[in-house]
Amino acid sequence: MIPEPGKCSFYDTYIPIKQAQAQPGMINFGYGSPRPPKDITLIARRALRQEDADVFCPYDLPQGQLTLCKQIAQMLVHQGLEVFPEDLIITNGSQQGLSLAMNYYVKPGDWVIVEAPTYYGAISILENLGARIIGIPMTAEGMNLDLLEQYLHSHRPKLIYTITTFHNPTGLTTAQAHRQQLLALAEKYNCPILEDNAYEGLNFEPVPPPIKALDKNDVVTYLGTFSKTLMPGLRVGYMVVTGNNYQTIIEQKLLYDFHTSSISQIIVSEYLASGHYRRHLNKLRIDNLQSRYMMLQALERYFPEEARWTVPTGGLFLWVQLPDDLPIQKIRSEALAQNVYLACHSAFFPDKQGYPAMRLAFCLPQEDIEQGISIVGKLLKKYISKGHEQISNYQPLAYSI
Amino acid sequence: MIPEPGKCSFYDTYIPIKQAQAQPGMINFGYGSPRPPKDITLIARRALRQEDADVFCPYDLPQGQLTLCKQIAQMLVHQGLEVFPEDLIITNGSQQGLSLAMNYYVKPGDWVIVEAPTYYGAISILENLGARIIGIPMTAEGMNLDLLEQYLHSHRPKLIYTITTFHNPTGLTTAQAHRQQLLALAEKYNCPILEDNAYEGLNFEPVPPPIKALDKNDVVTYLGTFSKTLMPGLRVGYMVVTGNNYQTIIEQKLLYDFHTSSISQIIVSEYLASGHYRRHLNKLRIDNLQSRYMMLQALERYFPEEARWTVPTGGLFLWVQLPDDLPIQKIRSEALAQNVYLACHSAFFPDKQGYPAMRLAFCLPQEDIEQGISIVGKLLKKYISKGHEQISNYQPLAYSI
Repeated sequence: MIPEPGKCSFYDTYIPIKQAQAQPGMINFGYGSPRPPKDITLIARRALRQEDADVFCPYDLPQGQLTLCKQIAQMLVHQGLEVFPEDLIITNGSQQGLSLAMNYYVKPGDWVIVEAPTYYGAISILENLGARIIGIPMTAEGMNLDLLEQYLHSHRPKLIYTITTFHNPTGLTTAQAHRQQLLALAEKYNCPILEDNAYEGLNFEPVPPPIKALDKNDVVTYLGTFSKTLMPGLRVGYMVVTGNNYQTIIEQKLLYDFHTSSISQIIVSEYLASGHYRRHLNKLRIDNLQSRYMMLQALERYFPEEARWTVPTGGLFLWVQLPDDLPIQKIRSEALAQNVYLACHSAFFPDKQGYPAMRLAFCLPQEDIEQGISIVGKLLKKYISKGHEQISNYQPLAYSI
Repeated sequence: MIPEPGKCSFYDTYIPIKQAQAQPGMINFGYGSPRPPKDITLIARRALRQEDADVFCPYDLPQGQLTLCKQIAQMLVHQGLEVFPEDLIITNGSQQGLSLAMNYYVKPGDWVIVEAPTYYGAISILENLGARIIGIPMTAEGMNLDLLEQYLHSHRPKLIYTITTFHNPTGLTTAQAHRQQLLALAEKYNCPILEDNAYEGLNFEPVPPPIKALDKNDVVTYLGTFSKTLMPGLRVGYMVVTGNNYQTIIEQKLLYDFHTSSISQIIVSEYLASGHYRRHLNKLRIDNLQSRYMMLQALERYFPEEARWTVPTGGLFLWVQLPDDLPIQKIRSEALAQNVYLACHSAFFPDKQGYPAMRLAFCLPQEDIEQGISIVGKLLKKYISKGHEQISNYQPLAYSI
């Protein structure tokens, strides 16, 4: 049973998405994860070589396996990020990287900047830490920098959290110039940046290099993962941590759980070494581009004219902004009754309200996109009335709690 | 290069042990982990069935896979612990279980009871949390209960941490009656117990059921792992959490890293299902018993008569208590120069001092035990003088910081 939409904690947001995924016949617009690669068991079995048992069986170092660190460093160099293997820490997905970095930078009562909307798992970690969260609205270029500077000046936050490429949930990519300005502001106000780049690699067009590529003064901690490009069940992500921050974070990783599963690490390693990963990524991009096209077409066809959506150049999600005061929870419940799952939009806002909107995962089978968007479109039209025609237009409002 | 013995944080204790393990020719008495099972790659490959890709590829629930939870619950029933699969949370080894439970029960400034000596990884988590630690000395029966009650009364601690079976580092097993009294005291003073049972399964003789088996009021949180019986590289452990504590801890697990590697989980599952695990454990017990016998013989032969040691009925370690004021760090350095690694004894004490002692892992090849103990024995004899003949005899001293 999937609970009725309502509560919006991390747990209460994630579990229904996961349950919806397990339910046959459910069209799940909430779940953002690739389909398993076809050759996964072949590669995984090949990775488990008897002669390497002494590598993956014993306790390992907290930073992870050197082979994998070298491979990731090389991969990042191709993204414009000059990284050495000894700057890397292998984590259990980027969720653990978020947890490690936020626990390192943030103390109870500290102010922290996030984009509004942003990834709900990050909001939950910050809430759990007792941080005070300032949500800076997203614009088409990235977070509103005028507002950011105001808050940097007035609140002296301890961390800026940003998802630079194919931002979750909006799908927007922070522009190159914007990245430079964001870093300059962070340096001016001596505020570290946590750059979450979980969707890197899923691009249909070239994307600007990460902010970390511009970072000369160890201002930026960078997070990546194989959950969105390979498979989340492996729980393999990574952090790039430079300068004095490295030692404390690696000690915390050891305290958390010694190290990430060595079996998971050698499977990713084998993937990267074999060339399957590059081919798999190419296929994923083509499939995703096709799915995004289908969804854009369906949105044009079925959604009311009052709705606006982003057109991401990669990633897994797009974001639909809806007229103010639309009873979105009611719409979610009615969609669920018709076997269509929509993620809780308010979970993505630090104030747990935000504006009426929907994060739609577009990597679904073509017929599901068509049918699901048609159902949701009808519901939206039913509720749209004269009073609902106004839309916030990404107003520069900061959500602070 | 293995650094000179000296610093005693978790990181500074663990990393040299791990580095020593990687160094050819090093006799490492510091490392407590089984040799990899011979059939590990066979079983692991078999676990990776193409038809199950939909099970181990996607995001999973934070509690872990139902199949594995059911298998562990059944295994625990055989240990005298009536557990339901829904009481279980699969963790990244028991280290993550420690971290989750301690973060749940302990706030900065809280008093916490541990055994003295105890597992250094637990001390580090508590220090990191800003807890104030009271170390209750171990006796042959378990922690000194008179002292425990004094501190429960005077300091109102928020948690009792105990390693009940083949205690790390002493190898002692808390007696049945002692377990009952410990639980009664915890209930009387309304103080939860964290029972770490990482060495369960490695017994040469029957052991009493865990304290959790006696727990009718959700006082005890129980930790287990496959790191000591199967292989630590998998990072698969588990918690038994009953009552109201479950929901908060499962939400924290989700925040930490979503869930434990699904690949690691299905490999453990396959092991448990195949019957290989039981055969492997039987072989491990016979090998370990043989190794313990070799070590006891070597100790009798080479160690000075002033030394005393425990005779564990299972597990991986024994504990040698040495005369007061022996320059133990000097002895460690000199042993290292002769390719013998000894773990930092003071890391096991909450005050980071304790009394001169050695934790010796006995699961080494026979010739290593003979040679290593002979080297250490000679060093000990060299330093033992008239002034060093006194020994503390597990005096009922509490180490509080």
